[in-house]
Amino acid sequence: MGGDSGPAELVAGAVLAVAARDLRVTLVGDETILASELRQHGSQPGVAQCIDIVHAPEVVAMDESPIEALRKKKNSSIAVSFSLLKKKEVDAVVSAGNSGATMAAAVRNLGRLPNVSRPGIASVFPTLRQPMVMMDVGANVDCRPLHLYQFAVMASTFSRMMFNIDRPRVGLLSIGEEAGKGNILVKKTHALLSDSDLNYVGNVEGRDCFKGDVHVVVCDGFVGNICLKLSEGLAGAVLTMLKHELSQTLSARIGAILSRKAFVNLRKVLDYAEYGGAPLLGLNGIGIVCHGKSSPMAIANALKVSARMVRSGVCATIAEMMEKSVVEEPDSDHGTEEADG
Amino acid sequence: MGGDSGPAELVAGAVLAVAARDLRVTLVGDETILASELRQHGSQPGVAQCIDIVHAPEVVAMDESPIEALRKKKNSSIAVSFSLLKKKEVDAVVSAGNSGATMAAAVRNLGRLPNVSRPGIASVFPTLRQPMVMMDVGANVDCRPLHLYQFAVMASTFSRMMFNIDRPRVGLLSIGEEAGKGNILVKKTHALLSDSDLNYVGNVEGRDCFKGDVHVVVCDGFVGNICLKLSEGLAGAVLTMLKHELSQTLSARIGAILSRKAFVNLRKVLDYAEYGGAPLLGLNGIGIVCHGKSSPMAIANALKVSARMVRSGVCATIAEMMEKSVVEEPDSDHGTEEADG
Repeated sequence: MGGDSGPAELVAGAVLAVAARDLRVTLVGDETILASELRQHGSQPGVAQCIDIVHAPEVVAMDESPIEALRKKKNSSIAVSFSLLKKKEVDAVVSAGNSGATMAAAVRNLGRLPNVSRPGIASVFPTLRQPMVMMDVGANVDCRPLHLYQFAVMASTFSRMMFNIDRPRVGLLSIGEEAGKGNILVKKTHALLSDSDLNYVGNVEGRDCFKGDVHVVVCDGFVGNICLKLSEGLAGAVLTMLKHELSQTLSARIGAILSRKAFVNLRKVLDYAEYGGAPLLGLNGIGIVCHGKSSPMAIANALKVSARMVRSGVCATIAEMMEKSVVEEPDSDHGTEEADG
Repeated sequence: MGGDSGPAELVAGAVLAVAARDLRVTLVGDETILASELRQHGSQPGVAQCIDIVHAPEVVAMDESPIEALRKKKNSSIAVSFSLLKKKEVDAVVSAGNSGATMAAAVRNLGRLPNVSRPGIASVFPTLRQPMVMMDVGANVDCRPLHLYQFAVMASTFSRMMFNIDRPRVGLLSIGEEAGKGNILVKKTHALLSDSDLNYVGNVEGRDCFKGDVHVVVCDGFVGNICLKLSEGLAGAVLTMLKHELSQTLSARIGAILSRKAFVNLRKVLDYAEYGGAPLLGLNGIGIVCHGKSSPMAIANALKVSARMVRSGVCATIAEMMEKSVVEEPDSDHGTEEADG
C-alpha cells in the first residue's frame, strides 16, 4: 500500500514479476483496492496462479514517525508483511513504503543475525562498469568503526553472491585516497579493515564511486543517504538540463529526435530503481526497501532480487561470514573526539 | 606552479583574466618557466601592463602532507603567495595547487577573522536555477554544531554579496526534511540555526541541492567534500555514458552531431571549475582554491571572482556579520554521542 503513487504501480510490478512463473507474490494491504487493481491484469500470464492477497486494513504514511506508526497501526501493510515473514508464510518482503517503518518492522520481526551490531541498508549504484554496493545508506546515522567494519563484511558477501564477484574490492568512503585522510571515524575504521580478510583497497573518494573500480563502498548511514539522494538529484538535474539544451535550437531538436533511444537508455542507467531496490542486510530474513516513486519495472526487479536472495541463501552466508569476522571493538568511544578551535 | 598539468594552464588563465585590464595578476613560481610561458602570450591584450612575476623556487606537490610541506618549503609558490598577501603586495591569492597546503598557508599568514572558530572552504554548485553555495567542502572533517552555524553565517554573507541575493535561503544538509531527521550533529545545529537571524529553511536533502531552491547548504567538511567529489564523478560518468549511447547507432551519431552545441553547453554547466573555484571564508584576507585540473577559463574566472570579492569588501562584511551572530556554544561535547548496539 506504500509508495508515493498508491498501490497501482506495485500491483503492476507484481504482475510483471510473475510473468515467468518462477516466483509467487502475496500482495498485502486493503483487500478491496488490491483485488480491484489486480482484476485489471487478470488476463496476464501467471496472475491467477502466482498472486494472492492478504488483507491489512491500515497504512503507514510516508511522513509518519516509524516507531509511533508501528505502535499505533498493528495491522498496517508493513507490519502484517513482516509478521507473514516471521511466520514463514512468505520468504521475503519488498516495500516501497515508509523506509524507516520498514526497517523498524524488519528488525522487530526478524531480529538481527548473530554477531551483527547494526543491520543496515545497502544500495546498488550504476557505474561505468559493474554495479557498486554502498552500505549503509540510511539506517544508522551515527556509527562506530565496528559498525562500518561489519557493513563491509555484509556488503562484500552480498556483492559476491548476487553479482558473482569472487573477491569484491571493498573501499572506505573518504576525502582522500591516502590512509591518513578522513574524519576520526574513517581513520579508525581504516585500521580495522586493513587487518581484515576482506579484499580491502583503502579509501575511495566520491569521484571514484562511479568508475566501477570498487564493488563495495562503506560509509555511515548519514553520509550514504546523502550520497544516494545527491546522486538521484544530480542525475535528474542533468537530464533536465539536457532536455532544456536540446530544445534551444531547431538543429538540436532534430538531433534529439534522432538520438532519442540514447537518452532513453541513459535515463534507464541512471534510474537507480531499475536496480531492484535496497536490501536490508544483517537481519534474520530478507527485506528490500524500494524508492517511493518506484515504477512497475523497479518493483518487479526488486521482487526478482528478493527471490534470488532467498535461493542463494545470502542470509545464512552473511551469518557465517560475520561469525568468521568477529573482532574486538577498538575502543569504547564513538570514533569522534574533541577538536581544537 | 600547482595543479595537475603544470603552469601552462595557469598562465593562460591569467592572460584571459587581464584581457579587460580591470585587474592585475602576479604569477608566483619558477621565474624562468613562468617567463617562458608568458612570452607565448606576449601579444595578448593587457599582458605587458597587467601581469608580473614573483620568483618562488619551490613547489608543494599535490600529494604532499600540507603541514610538513609548508615547514620544509618556505619558498614554495603557495607560501610566497600568501606572504605577498600578508604584506599587502597583492589583494588575493588563487591556487590550483595542494588544497590542504593552500588552506594551511592561508590560515598561518592571514589569520582567522574575529569570532570565527573554523575558517572553511565554500564551493559554488550549478543548479537548475541560481548557483548554490555549499560550506564546508573539506577544511574541517570533524565539526561541532557551532562550526556549522558559523559556516551558515559566512556562506550566507558570501551568497548575498556575490550573487546579489537579498536574504539567501539557508538549508542544513540532512537525510530528511523534518526537524527530527539527521545525525546528532545536524539535530544540534538545527536548533542553533532555527534561533538565528538567517533565512533558515530547515533541513534539505541531497536530492534538493540541485533544484536551486536554497542558496546556501551547510554541512561538515567530510560530508561536503564527499558531495563535491561525488557530484564531479557522477557528472563525468553521465557524460561518458551519454557519449557511449550516442555512438551506438547511425541515427544517434547523426543526432549527436546536430545537437552538438547542447552537449557543449551541458558540459559547461556541469563543469564546476567554470564557477570560479572555491573561496576560503573566515580568514582575514581572500584566498581561492581551484581544482587541480582547472582549465584556463576556470582560472580566469577564479581570478575575476577574487577581484570581485576584494572590491565588494566581503571579508569586512563577514567579520561584521560574525560579530552580530555570536552565540553561546550549546554544550561542550562534540555533537555526537554513544549510540546503542
